[in-house]
Amino acid sequence: MAKPARHVFVCSQNRPAGHSRGSCGQKGCAEVVDEFMKQWQDRQLFTQVAVTSTGCLGPCNVGPSVVIYPEGVMYGNVTKGDVGEIFDQHLLSGKLVERLLVSAGIW
Amino acid sequence: MAKPARHVFVCSQNRPAGHSRGSCGQKGCAEVVDEFMKQWQDRQLFTQVAVTSTGCLGPCNVGPSVVIYPEGVMYGNVTKGDVGEIFDQHLLSGKLVERLLVSAGIW
Repeated sequence: MAKPARHVFVCSQNRPAGHSRGSCGQKGCAEVVDEFMKQWQDRQLFTQVAVTSTGCLGPCNVGPSVVIYPEGVMYGNVTKGDVGEIFDQHLLSGKLVERLLVSAGIW
Repeated sequence: MAKPARHVFVCSQNRPAGHSRGSCGQKGCAEVVDEFMKQWQDRQLFTQVAVTSTGCLGPCNVGPSVVIYPEGVMYGNVTKGDVGEIFDQHLLSGKLVERLLVSAGIW
């Protein structure tokens, strides 16, 4: 494994139903993680991109959350349907997906 | 939570005993994760640094693995005893801990 050009971190944190903080898990992050892993595999991008699931990334209220480095941007409320665009536009073309960026107060 | 100046990702991946790939879990990453979380809290660095546990970061053979962005460096064979130095030297002073860097062929 070589150092990737871009590294995607996808929250997979879950908490029990009724937990005051909520969680990305309660908002469907499992299928977002799965879709990132699937497209990473389907596109065979192992040398250009790394994809890693994570524990809590912080702002649970805007989850499912995704952080991408080296840019250091956070996308919020990410759905399975957004993953293809994140690959095409950001990971492969270097353009941020503006509509998914969380606000500056959050990240 | 504001965007941190540095973001530490600490592998917490475990696999069953005897798994051919091994895992950071088998090599004591749980206490490394715990030590990062403890020192993050003790030092009250929540606005400057983010600490996140992760699934597999890739090169299990050099685990426990730690990746830090935006520099995009990977440290390998990290022990609980290394965590203070990573905070003092890298996270707070911006100097890499050269002795822990994995080789270029790995990352």
